[in-house]
Amino acid sequence: MILQQPFLLYLGDATSPLAVKTSRGIAQWRPDLCIGEYSNKNCTISLNVEQMTPEVAKKKGAKTFIVGLANSGGKIAESWISDIIIALEQGMDVASGLHQKLVDIEIIRNAAIEHGCQIHDVRHFTGAIPVGTGKKRSGKRLLTVGTDCSVGKMYTSLAIEREMKQQGFDVEFKATGQSGLLLGASGICVDAVVADFISGAIELISPDAAPEHWDIIEGQGSLFNPSFAGVSTGLLHGAQSDLIVMCHEAGRQFIKDLEGYKLPDLKQCIEHNLTVGRLTNPNIKLAGISLNCRLVGKEKGLAMIKDLEKRFGVPCFDPILTGVKNLVDTL
Amino acid sequence: MILQQPFLLYLGDATSPLAVKTSRGIAQWRPDLCIGEYSNKNCTISLNVEQMTPEVAKKKGAKTFIVGLANSGGKIAESWISDIIIALEQGMDVASGLHQKLVDIEIIRNAAIEHGCQIHDVRHFTGAIPVGTGKKRSGKRLLTVGTDCSVGKMYTSLAIEREMKQQGFDVEFKATGQSGLLLGASGICVDAVVADFISGAIELISPDAAPEHWDIIEGQGSLFNPSFAGVSTGLLHGAQSDLIVMCHEAGRQFIKDLEGYKLPDLKQCIEHNLTVGRLTNPNIKLAGISLNCRLVGKEKGLAMIKDLEKRFGVPCFDPILTGVKNLVDTL
Repeated sequence: MILQQPFLLYLGDATSPLAVKTSRGIAQWRPDLCIGEYSNKNCTISLNVEQMTPEVAKKKGAKTFIVGLANSGGKIAESWISDIIIALEQGMDVASGLHQKLVDIEIIRNAAIEHGCQIHDVRHFTGAIPVGTGKKRSGKRLLTVGTDCSVGKMYTSLAIEREMKQQGFDVEFKATGQSGLLLGASGICVDAVVADFISGAIELISPDAAPEHWDIIEGQGSLFNPSFAGVSTGLLHGAQSDLIVMCHEAGRQFIKDLEGYKLPDLKQCIEHNLTVGRLTNPNIKLAGISLNCRLVGKEKGLAMIKDLEKRFGVPCFDPILTGVKNLVDTL
Repeated sequence: MILQQPFLLYLGDATSPLAVKTSRGIAQWRPDLCIGEYSNKNCTISLNVEQMTPEVAKKKGAKTFIVGLANSGGKIAESWISDIIIALEQGMDVASGLHQKLVDIEIIRNAAIEHGCQIHDVRHFTGAIPVGTGKKRSGKRLLTVGTDCSVGKMYTSLAIEREMKQQGFDVEFKATGQSGLLLGASGICVDAVVADFISGAIELISPDAAPEHWDIIEGQGSLFNPSFAGVSTGLLHGAQSDLIVMCHEAGRQFIKDLEGYKLPDLKQCIEHNLTVGRLTNPNIKLAGISLNCRLVGKEKGLAMIKDLEKRFGVPCFDPILTGVKNLVDTL
């Protein structure tokens, strides 16, 4: 799959920052690819990229319209369809990472055919995936895990990869979600594979490697999220990770979209991940804690980071506030 | 989906009893539906049902040819295809519970069209499945869990349902695998749904019910099976079970198909299931232990059952050797 660059990022009718995390990931990690952003009239979010219509974006050279939205269930909202059609009418390709496929919506498919455009449903891997075996693989692996969804696992993984590259490591980020794949990384949307093949999918994207090679594998969900813990479990087993980095959003009280569920205690969450991970790698260890300080702000965040370092005896950081050098220095 | 009865059970080229567990389940639970069995020349297994060709079976009234095989990955072997075609040429429908779809194999699809037969790929649920919510549901739920695959979770579930019916309970077995669905039970093959929807699928098949109604939910895999633990985790969360019954095969040393992996210790396996299950039902309890004594024999098996009852303080049974009355009496 090759996405034609550059992109127009679509924000739909998003009213929460978490809803546009896919578009935001692209704007943060590949700003050079982003011509502008576009949304429909009910949207209250902006990525601080220049706002423009598909018509203007096309004139400025945009080649692909990115449906950069993430929602529970991965459905395409009725209100987005006419905006997608407008982009196709301008001759842009359209890429989406949602569970529901663009090609399954007849008027979208017909518009793409009529205007000679490509449709990319990146969440759907078309190759064969084997059943996981749990067989020991060579090379080193670091997996980001979390107390919940949308706490910064992809951001943390990419920041670690970048810092390790700068320090001269042989390292590659492995995507397990739509945003990473839209950024052009290798990987599979693990939450979209057939349930029996979750761990097998991760074994496939992170195969045997040179002894000093690192795969930085992006985690998904949380062992404590009652909607998605199956995916997180299979991912942890398939990753066979030597190291985990626990990602947490300071100040978040409840599991995303499930207000009855309190976020797990950090210590309990770390220990449970190590217990589950030990099945396929008995030497799994906690490497560090990534604390997303968006909600609590800089001053309080830095104090919490200091406190967590004392409590857990591992490097703690916010990849945006402090960078990840203190973690990578220990590898 | 309605399967035309009666059936001819197909055993393919099976050389292990576990490979034909789907056909065996039907022969055990609905012998009245089974006209005979058929296999190809390399098969070394029999269900002690009358052996006959599709031609003879058709003359005796067989309407559906059941591809009653279970393998890791759910693939259709090359050697089965010609046997399936022979059945279609006799005018029989064909039903399979494998991941790989019969309808995706061109010569099978063409033969079905030519001979006016139906093809049923029962593993593939065609309706919409919601994301799991973890929201408390009314009614009571018992889930069978296990130390591994193929230890007797479906058999145990069906035996509990039968005994509860005899004792006058309002109870229904909910299938989560191919064999249960081929038996005509309601349910979904949970290992074939998209990974993000595992717990949602179980919430869908076991919805709110009357306070005294019991759903007996069939478990899959094991939290300690590195190939399939993602499925088992989502199933446990979606089931929100009040009670679990731990199923184990006495004498099994290694995880099925993965010789490097020892079976978990029974106590550790029970505690881990309760820990994981507590996320969606804080009151989850161990109701009993189902010990499959096939490998160790009656005398040794009965001694082990006695010993386990002392050790864990719950009813222990082999559904075939002893029945499940001691468990149901405690409900």
